[in-house]
Parts: sequence; structure tokens; C-alpha cells
Amino acid sequence: MAEAKALSGAGLRGQVAGKTALCTVGKEGAGLTYRGYDVRDLAENCLFEEVAYLLLKGELPTQSQLNHYLEQLRLQRELPKALKAALEQIPASAHPMDVLRTGTSVLGTLEPEHSFTQQQDIGIRLVAILPAILCYWYQYSHFGKRIATQSDEPTLAGHFLRLMLDKKPSELHTKVMNVSLILYAEHEFNASTFTARVCASTLSDLYSCVTGAIGTLRGPLHGGANEAAMAMISKFKDPEDAINGTLKMLVNKELIMGFGHAIYKEFDPRNEVIKAWSKKLAEDTGDDSLFPISEAVAKVMWDEKKLFPNADFFHASAYHFMNIPTPLFTPIFVCSRVTGWMAHVFEQRADNRIIRPSAEYTGPEQRAVTPIAQR
Amino acid sequence: MAEAKALSGAGLRGQVAGKTALCTVGKEGAGLTYRGYDVRDLAENCLFEEVAYLLLKGELPTQSQLNHYLEQLRLQRELPKALKAALEQIPASAHPMDVLRTGTSVLGTLEPEHSFTQQQDIGIRLVAILPAILCYWYQYSHFGKRIATQSDEPTLAGHFLRLMLDKKPSELHTKVMNVSLILYAEHEFNASTFTARVCASTLSDLYSCVTGAIGTLRGPLHGGANEAAMAMISKFKDPEDAINGTLKMLVNKELIMGFGHAIYKEFDPRNEVIKAWSKKLAEDTGDDSLFPISEAVAKVMWDEKKLFPNADFFHASAYHFMNIPTPLFTPIFVCSRVTGWMAHVFEQRADNRIIRPSAEYTGPEQRAVTPIAQR
Repeated sequence: MAEAKALSGAGLRGQVAGKTALCTVGKEGAGLTYRGYDVRDLAENCLFEEVAYLLLKGELPTQSQLNHYLEQLRLQRELPKALKAALEQIPASAHPMDVLRTGTSVLGTLEPEHSFTQQQDIGIRLVAILPAILCYWYQYSHFGKRIATQSDEPTLAGHFLRLMLDKKPSELHTKVMNVSLILYAEHEFNASTFTARVCASTLSDLYSCVTGAIGTLRGPLHGGANEAAMAMISKFKDPEDAINGTLKMLVNKELIMGFGHAIYKEFDPRNEVIKAWSKKLAEDTGDDSLFPISEAVAKVMWDEKKLFPNADFFHASAYHFMNIPTPLFTPIFVCSRVTGWMAHVFEQRADNRIIRPSAEYTGPEQRAVTPIAQR
Repeated sequence: MAEAKALSGAGLRGQVAGKTALCTVGKEGAGLTYRGYDVRDLAENCLFEEVAYLLLKGELPTQSQLNHYLEQLRLQRELPKALKAALEQIPASAHPMDVLRTGTSVLGTLEPEHSFTQQQDIGIRLVAILPAILCYWYQYSHFGKRIATQSDEPTLAGHFLRLMLDKKPSELHTKVMNVSLILYAEHEFNASTFTARVCASTLSDLYSCVTGAIGTLRGPLHGGANEAAMAMISKFKDPEDAINGTLKMLVNKELIMGFGHAIYKEFDPRNEVIKAWSKKLAEDTGDDSLFPISEAVAKVMWDEKKLFPNADFFHASAYHFMNIPTPLFTPIFVCSRVTGWMAHVFEQRADNRIIRPSAEYTGPEQRAVTPIAQR
């Protein structure tokens, strides 16, 4: 065996593990781009479906391409009967991320990918169906309701809110959900995406790649920061309490979620977008508490630690203003990021080599087995 | 962002991505070691459960530790009712690897890992229950039988054969299955294990790590070589036909599975072990066809291409002699390798940094969004 080369950083930090045409993160002058477009530009001017199309098919769609894509997505929203039956076996106490992981895996047994020529069709199916997997289980396990998984909402943002809250969403809420789905859609070689690519590199099927990615996003070092931020801000009763509480947490060296970033060093470009929308939602709902509390926490974090809010922090208040139950925050991330994951799988498949690194051995020297009677 | 460092090889080949005390592969004088023990030594002298204990707990067990461990495993074989109901939803046409992936994911919703202090207990549960997940679905979907998932077989090898074939296995078959499970238990940073570690690095739960690893092993570049080898050797009617057929495949540049290895350059230490047992099984069953055919193929591959049989090639005939249905070959790999995967997860958790490499960007320059009407 050739001598393996040691990398300088643990966790492959700063090491190039492959190529991508999908995304830049933290490049000067452009905080986050999807196929060359600034995420803020996309969030202002596009439907989530245009961004999904961009990631999965390579370019932004024309109006007629978009209309066709929206129609394809609408036709793929229904859950197969066997998948509903499987979801009904999952208790209300389950982690919603485990439900999405399981639902995706079950779907892979029912509508398998026999050939990579199916990948675009399965891509449509997964984007269209994930909200239904989540919401069908949620409404059934929590309220005993077997909801319809079709709706007359034309876009995924509206459809998702419709299923989640079981009522027609407002135009503002649909707009904010659309923006949120765009902001979370893609982020280069983050851990869940890297899992999807490692899985894809054995030429496994698309469902396996997405199932693995969901399981990876489930970890608290990756997804879940907006849920943790929500838990924190909902404990404070007003901005003054928030300032004192945050200072106290800093003194106690408690982990404060939703701030700073492994790659962005000065700001997270997604923050300014979701913060502005959270402010609009606060005005819309007449909130004079949660948004000022969030701002107070952010000010303390900047003044004391020079840490900026990342994409997750103002998502907490934004989702809350839209009446989304906190345990469903991270699953929304899944319904968005599945587009980025699958685009990376397609890219890996198009120029593949199995991802199989080496390890530095730190274990015992070679030894002989002692017969069990003499151990 | 600091400049990312480019790696020389695609697929992280030959690059150290972390540390392990579990395994060496291809080190001089020791083809494959688990915590310092040559896999051939373990296969000759141990039960699979001793090896699982070694990998998951650090050292080979004493007799009383082993007795206790065997008892713990026996008590954890039963499937929860909800898991049975979910498995009954999966059609006979499903890929057996997708069934194991799904069953593991469902179990994670029913018996979640709330804290890493549960990891050893869940480790016992998964080793004990995976054969039942596979066999319950297989017998139900193929034959409409709801099998008992308990048996009076004291070891996993015997229990697994008992469930798979629905009859008491012979001593010889139990012995060979035991050896096979040992040979497949661990193999350093292969792709499925690396997936488990990437997933673990976000501090996700054990079920997510194993689910992702199963999905990765499912890919034909990783698992499945013994199934492909079986398909090939079963086409030949005698050794002469095998020689001619193999030569013809080589001329046609067809892929011949079960030969050569990404890391072993001269021989695969697991081959001599399983080949010897396949020969014994051939004698036991009175076979004078499949084993000589396998030997003939191996001779052609060596003479013509200097390629040696790897662990998978003689596994094909061995499993066939034991009457195991070919689609269940790779799932056996899962029931063994789950020990290695989980040992790597425990190791990752004990000294963790999130695995988040960088990518080389090959996409378009920054550009502005064109309004959809002008596209």
C-alpha cells in the first residue's frame, strides 16, 4: 500500500474533497452563490421551484419550463398507501427527522431507482412528497387526523404551510416560506451533503443518498440550530431580560445557538434576508416581544463576542410568527436542502470515483489470539 | 476563508481522514487486523460474538463476559410489533438492502437513542435484531409467513441461518456462517464506514449512522460483489465452460466481480479462509461443479490478469452450498459489518470534530438573476 498522506486538519477542514459547480460559500464579494447567483438575489426574485430547477437541471427555467415543472411537482404530492400505513406505525414521540429519514427509505422500497436515467423523475418526486411525509405523520400521530396530501396551492411553500397547519396560508406567510426554502437549499460540502456524495460514490440509489443525508443533518452540530434558538428566545420575557439572560449564559459558558459559522467569518448573507422578513412578520402579527428580544440577543452577541447571527437565528422567530411547531423547524430544512443534496448526487454520478480515504492507525501492535480459557 | 488545500487523488484515495484503533488493512505481514489480531487467527479461534465484543468494547471477552454478552444478544432478538407492521408494507420486489435500511430507520423511531450513554445497549440491539428484520420481511413478502424471530440457537450465526432458511442449520453451516461474519466485520475507512463517521460527526444518533452506512454499502461499487460473482459462476456448466467463458468476458472487457482490491495488492487474506470453507462445503454437499468452476475462473483471472480472488468470490459458492438465496448475500454483510460501523461511530464520538471538507469550484462566474420574462 502506498504511504497515506496525513491531512493537517481534523474533520477534513479546509481540504478539497472534490469538485462542484453548484455553490460557493464565503467567497469574497459573494457570501453564498448557487451556480453563480447570489442567494440574496435569488431570494428576492425567484420562486423556490426556480431555484430547485437551477440546482437540479443547471439553469434557471423560462416561464414555460417553470410552469411545466410546477405542474410535475403538483402531480407527485400524493403518498402511496403503503407509505401512509408505515408512517402510521411511528409514534408521536418520534423525532421528526427520523420520520423523514424513514419515510424516504420506505419510498425507496416502493418506487425504487432501477436506473440513473430515473434520477430527474425521482428528484421531482422527493421534492414534491417530503412535506406530505412529514405532515401526514405529524397530523396523524399528534391529532389522529388522516390529512389529504394534495392541496390547491400552486407552490411548494404554500402547499407545505397548508399541510403543516391544515389551513390556507396567507400570502405573506407563503412568501416567507418561499424565501426560507431558497436560503436553505444548498451549501457546498457541508456534512450532510458530503454524506450524500460518499453514498453516491458507491453508485447507490438516490433514496439511500437522501436517507443518509437526512440522518446526518439530524445531528445537533449541523441541523437543529433554529430549534435551539427558539428554545432560548422563548425563555426571555422582554429585551432587558434577554440582555441579562444572554450575558449570564456567556458568563456560564453556555452554548448559544444561531451565531457564528464554520466558514463565514464576518457575516452570514442569509441572515439579512430572513431578519428583514422576520421583522415584517412581527409587524404583521403585532408582535412587540419576540423580535425585539431576538435583536437584543444579537446585539449582546456582537458586542461581547463579535459573533453575528447565522441563517438559523432569525429563522426561529420567523417560523414562530407563522405558527410552525418548533419540532418541525429542522424538517423544513430537509424539504429545502434535498434539492442541493440531489444536485450533488447527480454531479458525483457524472464524474465518479468511490470516496474511500485512509486512516491513521493508533491501535495495538499485532498480537495473537489467546484461547478463551486462558483470557 | 483560508485557501483550501487540494488533494492529489480523487475520492480521497490515500488521504488520511482520521484516526482509528480498530483496523489495519494491507499492512505488511498482516493483511487485515482487528485491534491487532489477524482476521485469520480470529476466524479460526473465535465466535463472531467474541469479535463483535472486541470491536465494540475494546478487548476479546473472557468466558464469563462472552456468556453474558451471548445472553444479552439472545434477549434482544424480537421485533417490536410496529416494526413488523412496517415491514409487512414492503413488497417482495424490494431490494433487501432497502429493507434493512428501512427497518433500521423505523427501529430508530421506536427505540430512539436519547443519549450516547445508550450506545452499547443499542449496539447489542442492532446486532441481535438485524437478521430478524431481514428474515421477517423475506419470509412474509415471499411466502406469506409471519415467522417467529426468536430461536433456540445460541449464536448469531446459527440464529441467522435458522431464520433465513426456517429450519435448524447443520453444525458445519453454522461454523461457516460464523467465519463469514468474522471476515466481513470490519475494514477501516471503506465508503460505508466513512459515511457512518461523517454522520456521527454531527453528533447524530446511532440509527442514522447505521442507516446511512447500509445505504452506502448498497452501491454496486461497494457491496454486492458476491451476488454478482454468483450470477456469473452459475452461468457456467463445467470448469471448461468457465475457462472459455471467463476468457471471452476478458476479451469483451466485461467487468468480472470478486477479483482484485483497491487496497490489497497481492492477495486478500480473507480469501484463503473462505475458499477453504467453500471447499469443505462442496465436499459436504457432494458438489463436483460449482467449486471446480470457481477455481477455474480464479485460475484464468490469475493467469491472464494477475488478479486474485477477494473476500467476495468464494463467498458466492459457500453461501450457495448453504442454500442461502442470492439476494440475501449482501444483507449478511450488513449483519456482520454493523459491528465495525458502530465501533467507528463510538470512536468518532469519543474524539469528534465535524467532518466538513471543502470543494474546488468549477461553476459559472458570479451573475445576476434575469427576470423570468426575459429568460
